[in-house]
Amino acid sequence: MDISGELLIGGKARRGTSGEFYAKKADSGEKLLPPFGGATKVDLEDATALAWAAFPIYRESNLEARAAFLEEIGKNILELGDTLILRTMAETGLPRGRIEGERMRTVTQLSMFAAEVRSGKFLDLRFDAADPQRKPMPKPDLRLRNVALGPVAVFGASNFPLAFSVAGGDAASALAAGCPVIVKAHSAHPGTSELVGRAVQKAVATCGFPTGTFALLFDAGRDVSQALVAHPHIRAVGFTGSRSAGTAFMHIAASRPQPIPVYAEMSSINPVLLFPQALATQGSEIARKFVDSLTLGAGQFCTNPGLILAVDGAGLDDFIATAVERLRQVAPQTMLTAAICSAYQQGTAKLAAHPKVTTLATGSEAGDFQGSAALFETSGQDFIAHSELHEEVFGAASLVVRCKDATELDIVLSKLEGQLTIALHITDEDYNAAAALLPHLENLAGRLLVNGFGTGVEVSPAMVHGGAYPSTSDGRSTSVGTLAIYRFLRPVCYQDFPHSLLADVLR
Amino acid sequence: MDISGELLIGGKARRGTSGEFYAKKADSGEKLLPPFGGATKVDLEDATALAWAAFPIYRESNLEARAAFLEEIGKNILELGDTLILRTMAETGLPRGRIEGERMRTVTQLSMFAAEVRSGKFLDLRFDAADPQRKPMPKPDLRLRNVALGPVAVFGASNFPLAFSVAGGDAASALAAGCPVIVKAHSAHPGTSELVGRAVQKAVATCGFPTGTFALLFDAGRDVSQALVAHPHIRAVGFTGSRSAGTAFMHIAASRPQPIPVYAEMSSINPVLLFPQALATQGSEIARKFVDSLTLGAGQFCTNPGLILAVDGAGLDDFIATAVERLRQVAPQTMLTAAICSAYQQGTAKLAAHPKVTTLATGSEAGDFQGSAALFETSGQDFIAHSELHEEVFGAASLVVRCKDATELDIVLSKLEGQLTIALHITDEDYNAAAALLPHLENLAGRLLVNGFGTGVEVSPAMVHGGAYPSTSDGRSTSVGTLAIYRFLRPVCYQDFPHSLLADVLR
Repeated sequence: MDISGELLIGGKARRGTSGEFYAKKADSGEKLLPPFGGATKVDLEDATALAWAAFPIYRESNLEARAAFLEEIGKNILELGDTLILRTMAETGLPRGRIEGERMRTVTQLSMFAAEVRSGKFLDLRFDAADPQRKPMPKPDLRLRNVALGPVAVFGASNFPLAFSVAGGDAASALAAGCPVIVKAHSAHPGTSELVGRAVQKAVATCGFPTGTFALLFDAGRDVSQALVAHPHIRAVGFTGSRSAGTAFMHIAASRPQPIPVYAEMSSINPVLLFPQALATQGSEIARKFVDSLTLGAGQFCTNPGLILAVDGAGLDDFIATAVERLRQVAPQTMLTAAICSAYQQGTAKLAAHPKVTTLATGSEAGDFQGSAALFETSGQDFIAHSELHEEVFGAASLVVRCKDATELDIVLSKLEGQLTIALHITDEDYNAAAALLPHLENLAGRLLVNGFGTGVEVSPAMVHGGAYPSTSDGRSTSVGTLAIYRFLRPVCYQDFPHSLLADVLR
Repeated sequence: MDISGELLIGGKARRGTSGEFYAKKADSGEKLLPPFGGATKVDLEDATALAWAAFPIYRESNLEARAAFLEEIGKNILELGDTLILRTMAETGLPRGRIEGERMRTVTQLSMFAAEVRSGKFLDLRFDAADPQRKPMPKPDLRLRNVALGPVAVFGASNFPLAFSVAGGDAASALAAGCPVIVKAHSAHPGTSELVGRAVQKAVATCGFPTGTFALLFDAGRDVSQALVAHPHIRAVGFTGSRSAGTAFMHIAASRPQPIPVYAEMSSINPVLLFPQALATQGSEIARKFVDSLTLGAGQFCTNPGLILAVDGAGLDDFIATAVERLRQVAPQTMLTAAICSAYQQGTAKLAAHPKVTTLATGSEAGDFQGSAALFETSGQDFIAHSELHEEVFGAASLVVRCKDATELDIVLSKLEGQLTIALHITDEDYNAAAALLPHLENLAGRLLVNGFGTGVEVSPAMVHGGAYPSTSDGRSTSVGTLAIYRFLRPVCYQDFPHSLLADVLR
């Protein structure tokens, strides 16, 4: 399948004429053909009007048909074969193995939501039988089901060009819920987006759903994105990206005449707490696993371990010594985009130059478009005093906070913002100390791990990929796992309805 | 039990010293003793600090103990006997039968949440078994439960001094979820609030929960309310009241360093659609039931039928003739407060003076503190052109919109804002026309009724008391029924936890 650089609207492709941009090869900055045209206001109006028209039909679609549609998308993605793999590799700089794995994850995720749709559990059907004889008032017949919110705007993530992009977790869960989806493609992988978008569009046609069920827009700037979030026909937003962009979307959504939910997954430094006995007995082993997690995929994961918290002592020294040794051997890796690479270099340079921060180690020297891993250290006292040290540096950089005692560590914890994950490294003897911290940690993060690292997010029913702001905009939700479908649903109660007016599932 | 006018904080009563106000007899404006003292900043800090300290203990409380606590509150409310009934009657002007019924509803609601707590269903426990042999990566052990959000600020409603106030639906569902509750008493029924507050406080003590599990604050102005919503220890808000106050809370909550959810139930005109065949065959009967619903409790219900939509014709004329006749016989009723009464009189006067509105009927003349029912008419065209006619007039006023044809009625429907309820009056022959409207109506309202009126909200598993903005701040939720508990929960995933660190329910 060829990439045309066109928008996908209403079952067709059309050239966007509001600006033009190119994908770039991640490892060289070289322009990749063809040019992509940005959506105009007319394109946006067309896409949203079609989505709005598709909504009442698509949301009432038979569950089996909807599940088959999700699977069809997966099949179509696989059929793109190496055309997709090679384009994604070029646009993101990620290696073949990673892209193939992510493709499998994307397809599996679609199948998981298909199974969730078939189960019907997400409808939360409830029936309260009537009791006409009840005194003082007769009891009505009440039936409840969840219905889809409406068309959803999805903003793909740069760091998951398949699993959190055009047919990724947000789109899959919204489509599963019965919501038409309009994706604004990430400008870092527009060719990948178009290929996958065509796979979705083809599935819409094959399954006979209204053409407005899916659209793909490109944006040469930011106008399309903001207009999408503000558009009255858009009823929810799924986003993975920066804190600034996510927070801007939250404000746009809250200021609409009719506010809508924004599910933004934004910013997390994923603290790792190393407890004394774990450090004393397994410091080196933990350090090796830590460096492996930190440097996986050039550190470009939302769950990357960006903060190490421990109390001063020989165990921490051992941990650092091993981590430094291992990290120095890590080869630099191509980053997703020149902008991400530049932000990473600025972030690490800022840490290196900070008067209260020591650079412990860096990986071997990075070439253009590459990021080199980096490990820094500061004291508990300085971390507490300098909130700029709490900010995420997206990439393979981490900061060790050496606390003078457990009390100082507690204060450090009290200063943390919301997180996607918090990891505890413990042995039996640390359990009591860990248990005492859990209530606070549970308030901050959606997932707590013992003796592991947050990278490698399982796609399954018990997963939570969420957490208090700013890790996400809404800590009541998850963007990974089956629970993600509930973000796009709301309950409706039907009182004393004749059977013929009820949806099939409520009869 | 005597009413002291004191705040209830930390298991004790203390005098608020930030301003003073009195309850007033609803039917005379006469001051009722004692004076109530407004909470100071220190009182607010104490109450929130105690709630925050109580939170980790209360949220992990044994489910049976928590259920028993909710039942104990109900028992204590009943034990207040006529002291409560008489005070509530004086403060609200509502008759004994209504107050006794509402007390029963309040106690039943507490029992319903007790049963929900015992069932444990709200925890949404999920277990994904580990698979250490899985390739390429071992599968971790994942366990999920819902945890409580944190201390909740509850703002009681003026129109449900028991069922939606200190121990009403918001407080009961938040306590059921495991959240400490700080209630800001409604200034229209502070004595009622204190009595019920003492019943809750006594139950906290009896059940051995931390004293910070519950607090009751009075506010002589608005500062305490706004400071509560902005306070970092408050993690969610439950509110029933005006659109302006609810929207202000939404903005305060969204602008916090850490935004929190606001569940505000605000404003709804609850459209009633009269279909042609129903009008032709049952117009008079529907009119009688309509007037009964409209004038119940002086029309002071969130689900009061404030808008009648129908196509012009003889059936509509019959409906109006019967409604006019019946409404003229309705005696004026004491309203909840002088401010509500004044707003009602201004609202009806504005409608009566509107150049595009005809006054069809009013009830017999109202005395001071009373509201007299009122029925108005306008055309579909004028309703479409005048958005001020879409605003809620809280009380027993309703507006008939006479549409020239079904097409104009569709346009009227397209202009409506979000609603708590929409009622359809239909016979078999209207089913096709009704079915065509359902997708749009479902987007607007949380509850759709056939051949009934929205007043009389059942407290049960399938109830939805919610709807699109501005009927509520969050159309994904309900403030009545068992589903209300989910507003105060969020999921947390535990990965590879040793059993001894897991909560009992997850082992």
